Amino acid sequence: MDFTSIIGNVAALLTTISFLPQAIKTIKTKDTGSLSFPMYLLFVTGVTLWLVYGTLNNQMPIIVGNLVTLVLAGIILGFMVKGKFTKRFRGGL
Amino acid sequence: MDFTSIIGNVAALLTTISFLPQAIKTIKTKDTGSLSFPMYLLFVTGVTLWLVYGTLNNQMPIIVGNLVTLVLAGIILGFMVKGKFTKRFRGGL
Repeated sequence: MDFTSIIGNVAALLTTISFLPQAIKTIKTKDTGSLSFPMYLLFVTGVTLWLVYGTLNNQMPIIVGNLVTLVLAGIILGFMVKGKFTKRFRGGL
Repeated sequence: MDFTSIIGNVAALLTTISFLPQAIKTIKTKDTGSLSFPMYLLFVTGVTLWLVYGTLNNQMPIIVGNLVTLVLAGIILGFMVKGKFTKRFRGGL
């Protein structure tokens, strides 16, 4: 593997696993107060399209990387949606 | 432009601009309490390496996309570092 490919692989690994500590923190604390809902909505939609792109092009690294990111970012978005519903329900009482 | 390329371009656009609402929220509220510091450290490092990768390969879309993401994620990381220093300083008084 040449130098450029190594850089690309390390870059892909870092940006993919970066959502792991955020997912762990969100699961532990259930606090999504300073997270941006539109960010996660745009990001999850974008990563889903990357997954479609990788599948159409049959590019396994794009498929695997974006699948991992989709699961992690999806967990975080799930907590935010859950938080919004809980808040609305409490507000209604 | 074929269908697959359109999907790829929309995917790139969405994942790139997704950090804009988070950066705006962080600038406005200065609240980074539920953001993960390791996430932004890994992510900013990864995006920097993507920038190096794009430059070495002379791929303008990778360069431009990651430059925008780097600025946005860098602003958020900056607020987190600033918050950590302020907290430590206050703690020392």
